[in-house]
Amino acid sequence: MPMTRAEAQALDEHDALACLRAAFAPLDSLYLDGHSLGPPTRASLARVARTAGEDWSGRLVRAWNETPEGGWIDLPARAASKIARLIGVAPQDVVVADSVSVNLFKLAAALLQPGKAIGVFDGEFPTDGYVMEGLAGLAAAPFVRLGRDDQLTGRNIGVLIKSAVDYRTAATDDFVHFEAAAREIRAAVIWDLSHATGVLALDLARDGVRFAVGCGYKYLNGGPGAPAFLYCRSDAAARLSNPVAGWFGHSAPFEFAQDYLPAPGARRFHSGTPPILSLAALDAALELFEGIDMAAVEAKARALRAIFLARVAPLGLAVVGTEESGLAPARTGGHVGLRHEDGYAVIRCLTDRGVCGDFRAPDLMRFGFSPLYLRHVDAYDAAEALKDVVGGGTWRHARYQVREKVT
Amino acid sequence: MPMTRAEAQALDEHDALACLRAAFAPLDSLYLDGHSLGPPTRASLARVARTAGEDWSGRLVRAWNETPEGGWIDLPARAASKIARLIGVAPQDVVVADSVSVNLFKLAAALLQPGKAIGVFDGEFPTDGYVMEGLAGLAAAPFVRLGRDDQLTGRNIGVLIKSAVDYRTAATDDFVHFEAAAREIRAAVIWDLSHATGVLALDLARDGVRFAVGCGYKYLNGGPGAPAFLYCRSDAAARLSNPVAGWFGHSAPFEFAQDYLPAPGARRFHSGTPPILSLAALDAALELFEGIDMAAVEAKARALRAIFLARVAPLGLAVVGTEESGLAPARTGGHVGLRHEDGYAVIRCLTDRGVCGDFRAPDLMRFGFSPLYLRHVDAYDAAEALKDVVGGGTWRHARYQVREKVT
Repeated sequence: MPMTRAEAQALDEHDALACLRAAFAPLDSLYLDGHSLGPPTRASLARVARTAGEDWSGRLVRAWNETPEGGWIDLPARAASKIARLIGVAPQDVVVADSVSVNLFKLAAALLQPGKAIGVFDGEFPTDGYVMEGLAGLAAAPFVRLGRDDQLTGRNIGVLIKSAVDYRTAATDDFVHFEAAAREIRAAVIWDLSHATGVLALDLARDGVRFAVGCGYKYLNGGPGAPAFLYCRSDAAARLSNPVAGWFGHSAPFEFAQDYLPAPGARRFHSGTPPILSLAALDAALELFEGIDMAAVEAKARALRAIFLARVAPLGLAVVGTEESGLAPARTGGHVGLRHEDGYAVIRCLTDRGVCGDFRAPDLMRFGFSPLYLRHVDAYDAAEALKDVVGGGTWRHARYQVREKVT
Repeated sequence: MPMTRAEAQALDEHDALACLRAAFAPLDSLYLDGHSLGPPTRASLARVARTAGEDWSGRLVRAWNETPEGGWIDLPARAASKIARLIGVAPQDVVVADSVSVNLFKLAAALLQPGKAIGVFDGEFPTDGYVMEGLAGLAAAPFVRLGRDDQLTGRNIGVLIKSAVDYRTAATDDFVHFEAAAREIRAAVIWDLSHATGVLALDLARDGVRFAVGCGYKYLNGGPGAPAFLYCRSDAAARLSNPVAGWFGHSAPFEFAQDYLPAPGARRFHSGTPPILSLAALDAALELFEGIDMAAVEAKARALRAIFLARVAPLGLAVVGTEESGLAPARTGGHVGLRHEDGYAVIRCLTDRGVCGDFRAPDLMRFGFSPLYLRHVDAYDAAEALKDVVGGGTWRHARYQVREKVT
C-alpha cells in the first residue's frame, strides 16, 4: 500500500495497463464516475463520427449491408461476441439489444415456471425489482421479496434476479455457490452484471451461470444509454420464448413472413431494430478490451480502491457494506460507497476541485475506480481531495443550499 | 400532372417546401428509400458530433443535467413534444423510447382486458403480429387473426393493432371510422404510425385516437434504429400499468426507492435508460418539422407519387393495393409498391443508375417519396430510369445472379 504520492507514481510506472489511458479522449478531471457513465475512447468517438457522417450520410440504407466493419445488420452480433469474451461465454450466446430493463423482462418472462414465484432480494438494484414485479403482474405469477440473508431451501421460486456486484457496497456474490443453492429448488438465476462487466474477470461458463443481463455504459464505456446485453446459454435458449417477439429475433428477418419463427439460440431475444449510432459507439469501445488480461484489470481496480480507502480511513467515514461485519468484502467491483450526512455538498465541493464522484440520497457518496484510464496516483489524489474537503470542513461553507437531483 | 421534365421543374420552382432540401446532407442519388431509412439532416449530424465529442467527452456524467439543450435527462421529453405536435396530441401524452416492437408490447399489455382477445388483421405489418402473439402467449390471452375485410361486430376482442399506412400499398385507414367500429365492441386500438408520421397531416386528438406507436427512422429522418415513440392519451394512461416497469418511468427516478410508483400519464411507459446518441440524432432531425404545414407535406408526397405512377403507367406493372379494385386508394402515405417478377434485379440496376428503391420478396419493388428532400423532377427522373431499365430489358443482362438479402 503506497503511503506517499511518489510510491503511487512508482506503481503507475510499472503498470502494464497504464498505456490504455491514452486510448481515451483526454480527461480534464479525476473522473471517479465510470461506474455510472464511462468516458469515451478515441475509437468510439471516431466510430460515431464515421457512422453518422459517412455510413448513414453517404451509404444511407445500403449501410445495413455495407460498412467498413461489414454492415449494420451484423453490428449487434459483433458487439455481442466482444462481450461474450469478456464474460467467458460462447459468442452466439450473447445478444446486444435494448436496455437492461427490457432484457431482464424478456429473459425472466421466458424463464417463468407455472405456479412458481419470481424472487427478488431486499437491497437488490431497485429497477430490477420493478421489472420483476411488473412481469409478475402481467403473467399472473407470484412475486416474493426475500430478506437479504434468506435461504432458498424450501422456497417455491422459479426465477431469481441477482446482482453480481452490489450497486452500493460493490460486494460480489459467489456465482458457483449461489447457482448451487438455486439449483436445489430448480430456480433459474438471472445475474445482473451491470456493475461487474469490464471490471471483474468473469468466466460464467466455468461457473455454471446460464442467464445474465448487463449494461453497456458503465465500465464498458459504451456511451450514454448504450445498448445492454443478454446472455442465455445455448442449451437453455432452444426451449425459451421471447415474449417481445420482434422481426430482429426472427429466424428469417427479411422474409416478412406472417408467422414468427424464432432465430436459433440466444439470437431469438432480439426484438426491434437496434439504435445504430449508440450501438456503434459501444462496439468501438469494446475493442479496447481485446487482448487485455481481465485478471489484471480486476486486480488494479481493487488496488486503486484500496489506496483510496486506506488514505481516507482517518476521516472515519462509514464504508458501505462493512458497517455490520466490520470486514471488507473478499472480492469487490470497482466502486466504493462512503456515507456522509452532507454527502451532496461534499460531492459538489469535490467536483469544483476536479474530482468527480456521485451521490445517492440520503447520504451515499460513490467513487468508481475504472482501471483502464485511472492511475494509482489518481486514487491517491482523490483521497487527498476528499480529506481536504471533509477534514477541512470546506463543504460547510459551500454555496450548495439546495439538494438538487444528480444522476 | 406534368408531362415533361420542364413542367416538373416548374412545379419545383413554386414549391414552398423546396427550401427544406438544403437542410439535408447532400444526397448523391435519387433516394427513394426514405420510407425505410431517412437521410440525415445537417442539424442531426452536427448534434451527434456535439453530443459525442463535447457533451459525452467533455461533460461526462454531468451531461445528464447540463447540455446546451438542457440535459440528456429531458431529451426524451423534448423529442416527444415535437412528435406530439406532428401527430396532433398533447406533448405529455407521448414518450420517445425503445423500439416500435417494445412500445407496442408495453402498450398492448397495459390494455389487455380479462377474457378478451388480442386481434391482428391479415396483411398487418408482420412484426406487429409477432409481438401481439408473443404477448398473448405470456399473458394467457386469446389471440385472433382477422381476415382483411372482417367486421368487428360481435367479436370478443380487447386490443387491436392497426397500421395507419399499409407497408406495401401505402393505403391509409380512416381513424374515425375504425375507432367507431372498435368502440362498439369496447376494443382499444393501437395505431402503428410507422409509415405515416412525418408524411401525413395527422390530428389524432381530433380523430379520437387514444393509443399509437411509431418509428423514428423513416420519414422522421431520426437515424438508423432511432428510438420509437408511444402515444397514450392522458385520461387512459392513469389506469394503465407498464409491465416493463423500469426506473425511467418511475415517478421519482432518482430516489432509488424499493417500490415502483409510476410516473403520471404516458411517462410511465418509459423503461430503461434511453440510447442518447441515437436519441440526439432524432431530436435534432425533428427540428426540421417545426413550423412546417403538414398538409402541404402530405399533398406534395401525393403529387410526387402521382407523377411517378403516371410516368411509369405504360410499363403496365401491377401497383400493389389497386390490383383487386382497380382503384387507387383515396389517401395514401408516401411510398409506392410495384410488382415485377425480377424486381430484385431491377432494383439493383436502378441503384447502379443512382436511383435507390427497395425490394421485398418475392416480387415487390418499393419507392418512397419523402417530400422534405425530394423534388418533383426527382419523381420524374426516377420514373424515366425505371422505364429505361424495365422497358429496355437492362435487368436481363444484369450480373445479379444471386438474390442476396436486402433490408
